[in-house]
Amino acid sequence: MRELNVGMIGYKFMGKAHSNAYARVNMFFDADMQVNRKVICGRDEAGVKAAMDKFGWQDYETDWRKMIARPDVDVVDINSPSYLHKEMAIAAANEGKHILCEKPLAFSTADAREIVEAANKAGIKHQVGFNYRFAPAIVLAKQMIESGRLGKIFHFRGSYLQDYIISPDYPKVWRLDKSVAGSGSLGDLGAHVIDCARYLVGEIDRVVGMEKTFITERPIAASMTGVSATAQANSPRETVDVDDATHFLGEFKNGALLSIEATRFAAGHRNDMSFEINGSKGSIKFNLERICELQYYNAEAEEGFQGFTTISVTEGTHPYVYAWWPAGHVYGYEHTMVHEVFEFVQAIANDKPASPDFNDGLKCAQVMEAVDLSAQRGAWVEVDSL
Amino acid sequence: MRELNVGMIGYKFMGKAHSNAYARVNMFFDADMQVNRKVICGRDEAGVKAAMDKFGWQDYETDWRKMIARPDVDVVDINSPSYLHKEMAIAAANEGKHILCEKPLAFSTADAREIVEAANKAGIKHQVGFNYRFAPAIVLAKQMIESGRLGKIFHFRGSYLQDYIISPDYPKVWRLDKSVAGSGSLGDLGAHVIDCARYLVGEIDRVVGMEKTFITERPIAASMTGVSATAQANSPRETVDVDDATHFLGEFKNGALLSIEATRFAAGHRNDMSFEINGSKGSIKFNLERICELQYYNAEAEEGFQGFTTISVTEGTHPYVYAWWPAGHVYGYEHTMVHEVFEFVQAIANDKPASPDFNDGLKCAQVMEAVDLSAQRGAWVEVDSL
Amino acid sequence: MRELNVGMIGYKFMGKAHSNAYARVNMFFDADMQVNRKVICGRDEAGVKAAMDKFGWQDYETDWRKMIARPDVDVVDINSPSYLHKEMAIAAANEGKHILCEKPLAFSTADAREIVEAANKAGIKHQVGFNYRFAPAIVLAKQMIESGRLGKIFHFRGSYLQDYIISPDYPKVWRLDKSVAGSGSLGDLGAHVIDCARYLVGEIDRVVGMEKTFITERPIAASMTGVSATAQANSPRETVDVDDATHFLGEFKNGALLSIEATRFAAGHRNDMSFEINGSKGSIKFNLERICELQYYNAEAEEGFQGFTTISVTEGTHPYVYAWWPAGHVYGYEHTMVHEVFEFVQAIANDKPASPDFNDGLKCAQVMEAVDLSAQRGAWVEVDSL
Amino acid sequence: MRELNVGMIGYKFMGKAHSNAYARVNMFFDADMQVNRKVICGRDEAGVKAAMDKFGWQDYETDWRKMIARPDVDVVDINSPSYLHKEMAIAAANEGKHILCEKPLAFSTADAREIVEAANKAGIKHQVGFNYRFAPAIVLAKQMIESGRLGKIFHFRGSYLQDYIISPDYPKVWRLDKSVAGSGSLGDLGAHVIDCARYLVGEIDRVVGMEKTFITERPIAASMTGVSATAQANSPRETVDVDDATHFLGEFKNGALLSIEATRFAAGHRNDMSFEINGSKGSIKFNLERICELQYYNAEAEEGFQGFTTISVTEGTHPYVYAWWPAGHVYGYEHTMVHEVFEFVQAIANDKPASPDFNDGLKCAQVMEAVDLSAQRGAWVEVDSL
Repeated sequence: MRELNVGMIGYKFMGKAHSNAYARVNMFFDADMQVNRKVICGRDEAGVKAAMDKFGWQDYETDWRKMIARPDVDVVDINSPSYLHKEMAIAAANEGKHILCEKPLAFSTADAREIVEAANKAGIKHQVGFNYRFAPAIVLAKQMIESGRLGKIFHFRGSYLQDYIISPDYPKVWRLDKSVAGSGSLGDLGAHVIDCARYLVGEIDRVVGMEKTFITERPIAASMTGVSATAQANSPRETVDVDDATHFLGEFKNGALLSIEATRFAAGHRNDMSFEINGSKGSIKFNLERICELQYYNAEAEEGFQGFTTISVTEGTHPYVYAWWPAGHVYGYEHTMVHEVFEFVQAIANDKPASPDFNDGLKCAQVMEAVDLSAQRGAWVEVDSL
Repeated sequence: MRELNVGMIGYKFMGKAHSNAYARVNMFFDADMQVNRKVICGRDEAGVKAAMDKFGWQDYETDWRKMIARPDVDVVDINSPSYLHKEMAIAAANEGKHILCEKPLAFSTADAREIVEAANKAGIKHQVGFNYRFAPAIVLAKQMIESGRLGKIFHFRGSYLQDYIISPDYPKVWRLDKSVAGSGSLGDLGAHVIDCARYLVGEIDRVVGMEKTFITERPIAASMTGVSATAQANSPRETVDVDDATHFLGEFKNGALLSIEATRFAAGHRNDMSFEINGSKGSIKFNLERICELQYYNAEAEEGFQGFTTISVTEGTHPYVYAWWPAGHVYGYEHTMVHEVFEFVQAIANDKPASPDFNDGLKCAQVMEAVDLSAQRGAWVEVDSL
Repeated sequence: MRELNVGMIGYKFMGKAHSNAYARVNMFFDADMQVNRKVICGRDEAGVKAAMDKFGWQDYETDWRKMIARPDVDVVDINSPSYLHKEMAIAAANEGKHILCEKPLAFSTADAREIVEAANKAGIKHQVGFNYRFAPAIVLAKQMIESGRLGKIFHFRGSYLQDYIISPDYPKVWRLDKSVAGSGSLGDLGAHVIDCARYLVGEIDRVVGMEKTFITERPIAASMTGVSATAQANSPRETVDVDDATHFLGEFKNGALLSIEATRFAAGHRNDMSFEINGSKGSIKFNLERICELQYYNAEAEEGFQGFTTISVTEGTHPYVYAWWPAGHVYGYEHTMVHEVFEFVQAIANDKPASPDFNDGLKCAQVMEAVDLSAQRGAWVEVDSL
Repeated sequence: MRELNVGMIGYKFMGKAHSNAYARVNMFFDADMQVNRKVICGRDEAGVKAAMDKFGWQDYETDWRKMIARPDVDVVDINSPSYLHKEMAIAAANEGKHILCEKPLAFSTADAREIVEAANKAGIKHQVGFNYRFAPAIVLAKQMIESGRLGKIFHFRGSYLQDYIISPDYPKVWRLDKSVAGSGSLGDLGAHVIDCARYLVGEIDRVVGMEKTFITERPIAASMTGVSATAQANSPRETVDVDDATHFLGEFKNGALLSIEATRFAAGHRNDMSFEINGSKGSIKFNLERICELQYYNAEAEEGFQGFTTISVTEGTHPYVYAWWPAGHVYGYEHTMVHEVFEFVQAIANDKPASPDFNDGLKCAQVMEAVDLSAQRGAWVEVDSL
């Protein structure tokens, strides 16, 4: 079987999740290429060496420019801090490497356009890490909408709720630093919901929103693991320059209404992305913390027997599930990334466009920029104006 | 025991629910006055007579002006179609009668102000029919917030979702006629959520919203029972001039963020008012279709054992529950109205202000007018500017 | 309209619930007779007078024999402590009065047979207070099973879980005294589940079970309200002679399997009667604390879209719901008793058999006696052998 | 790091799940040995070679006796059809190999005793595949019970419900053949619940139960994948000699009551193992299809705020979770096996007893045999009598 050598930049949370995906894709799916975990790259040599051993990579680099230039690397996987995405993606494209880039693709519409152009010029395969598109329940939702099961769509209401920064003593970690993360709740959380909205319902026409920073000063961070972090002892407080919460309304081009909220101040919600879609023939509800379930209301069901049905999306006929376990045996978060990688490998192997690609990253950036502008102006903004 | 004679205008859905409340209040609560169902009033003599017999009233009238003038009427209960509320309330106040008026109090801030002035001038007790304030779970929520259990509030997100007008063949009933109902989803459904938001979190500072009429033409109605309706045969289509869905964002004066959605196009939701409140110390969730339950997340619970707790608000220590059944024996929708009437009777009997009163009706009207204006202007509107 | 005069023995929890039912039946249902709350009867004159006023009865008696003999009483409602049921029911039958008797009808199969014989001989209408048969969701379940929606039934598993006597300091109230209550968890709680099993699935052929008293000695009770109770100060401990928990397995005559558990030691369950029925074409689940909901699994639904559907049994087409509120407006515990009384009134008015009648009380007593015997013998017992 | 070479017999559902576990254990956990997928063994050469490639094993064998004798094999993993477990386990023990054997360990108490003796004599490490003991929520439950959070235990009620053989046309696959599977629902499903009961509450003293075969004749199987199967065309019907459903009651040695049901006839339940435990200080509920959640009722929580709390067992402080993802990122079924393998590796590496070991397999066999006997005799059976 043809082999596909991956070079990956980043080895923390996302690096671990992607490593797992590369390790498992051929074990569970009949991919048309054999994926090799070739080179892992990070600035801290001790750290990246340990990650290489732990996650089963063959080699490591500490200089990403050197890594992307290696002839034994076919695919560059970018899961470094967000502010580096643009530079790395353009450089990798220029090297002619296929790219899987974590979201957000870029901090602005303008930057995203540059990346798309570089990728197009290079003729590479490119994909952006909207991994929830690969949750079986969300693919099922997509199939249901496309086949007309929900009829004409009226409402999409989605939210991504977390709660790990509510304490004023939680430090200003990199995710709260605009120069590194680009954005707060909107870019980190809202981006996933925007992508789901676009994937499932269509392009967004216009938005109006608000952004809020509840805690405007925080101590300096000493360390961070996952989302846990400690502050430096007796740290002075620095200004937080990203949004703690963002909420916007909007209208799709097809006339459906939209509401998307992203917040890190919703006590009790650890990682709760959820959405509901209402159409003329039915509704669906999804909740990431019950990733194997889809709630479905069929308005055409027999009168007196209507109601939301909890579908366990674990049947062999459900998307991707055939590769895993029998019905009722649940899967988890990281499975989305195995599916994501599988589809990217198939796109490369069969020379077909990957999806979601950098254009989807650009479209998402446009919506986010429109939301930012709207919050500044206090008025509606057309997405296509950006 | 002192007696309190009620004269009620309206005998359909609300008239039935209020009749039940008057019939049950002394049976379950130790109210300080004995309530008599004295006179029921409606335009259709056959209809109102039948209602009198069915609902246990002593007398009837077909002319509301005559009814409110009767010396044997102490309290006027107004649950007629909304466009009549203003005229009736002012007239009843001028007669010196205490008033329980269904929501919406009025179609505009200006009208609501006139009613408040008339009531204040008359020195009567007045209450507006925001009956969900009397759901035990919502009173419990209020107590929890007031005692600091949720800490500083960051978010209120509420919605009232229904689905009975999704079909384009559902006729233009009175609730879809602006001249009769004043407003669509916003006034009918959103008003309840606005009142809960104000009751639980505080006054709203500013809003931005959108309104949408998905189906702009409908056949003429032949009949309506509850929310079921039939169209006239071969009816021409008339223009619908109210909102099918309204969604707005906002900020409370205390800095918390707000989202309220009201729609009649959410398939699968028959009568689903729900809200969630997130604070620094915890969160709560409420859902009207599970009226006896309150979800509570205590952020100060022991680490590793946190999560949303489903409180069955059926303990003897919970608000109003002592009057009903032992723990775990559930109550329903109409119980809110028994509590509502009980509190109104107590206010009259003890010469204390009723709550929520016409000022609450006015405040709600202000918010709704701000939302309407915002939707027209495409920009934020300050509530106090109205 | 013809009138029906009720004389009721008992004025505590059940007396209040029945009073409410009589007060509401004509207000919501088009019953063929007008029900009058004629006489309420209790041993304590002050108590029964207060109940008369509170619950709206016209007269009272302190001697039940005198009451049942009154010519102005048509129906005798027996909700006194269980040990009195037999004597009262036979006496009332002998007076030719129709009887609504709370469960358990009797403490033994032999006693129940005597009561049935007296009732048959008198030719009266008789009904036993298995009020959950009148929960709309359970009637819907019955309709579904009868129309073949569940196919051939394989399993009925039901339980009635409470938790109010877990503390060893909870006193020995009348419900824990065999001479007064007849039985513990089995007769108080299990009886309801047995009746549901029989109503929905059919007659029970044989059973094997166990009974347990976890706390064998308790202080003497000073007072009891609902299920709350206080012990006498420095009370000696008396032996508890009823079962704290009973669990039995069995087989229906139609071959389906059966499991019924009743316990007062299930922490967190205040009043949780629930059951699930599995058939070849589908399953249903019911839970009393969510009385308005029925979970339905349709095994013949489209592949990939199967799952349990939460039906809100609040549609106008659902049993009894037409009389109440629009869809999505929930009802509660006491509504079952309004329906129960309605059906009893209709049986009397139209000279048709009431249901569930004393024969159902007898059948239930047979099953309970079989369970008791099985627990003593440690072996299976045929129900019909008793 | 020291290496541990595994030789595995079986390559279907369990073989795939175990392969995944061996592949992931060192990637996520800091195990004290490096696990090598050395040899995979199966009778069909083409099949086992394909599995070797797919699941990343280094070599294969078609003769299990040859495989267990290989000096480069340290651990033998037995997930062949159940009837072979005894012979293989004893042979592997005699070769001095550590053994991880799938459940059921054996078909009878006598057989299980022989295996235990062989293992003890050989002085090897042995573990039995009760993988649900390694679900984080179940380990958390264990910790809660051991630390006294639930107080004295009164009830364990568990069930394992499936529905894939309801159709009479589903063929007689190996799981329905006593000579191959040993038992039906009891050994396949009930065994898991028995193990949870023993793990969490303690040893079982006595049981009484029933077994039922609803469909007594089925066509011959043509093929089976997971639990899906097809019948041979025009197949005659063979007698089914295992139980479709088994349900038994019992008492633990500590006095708590027990109910365990296993059935393949519960429509709507694909893989639903669930249990609830009630104690004097609280209760817990678990459901395998929501494997990341544990419901906890704390009877000592503040009055008025009690209720079942849904704990998302995804915090870094929860058992095993630290190795995976941040809070709220869910895991699935196969993670239990990674934990299972991790613990087995640690037992070997550190020369400590593995758990659950073959003695647990024996204890489970004792309970199952007691249930079988009870069903035959129609009476209670003491577990220790076997």
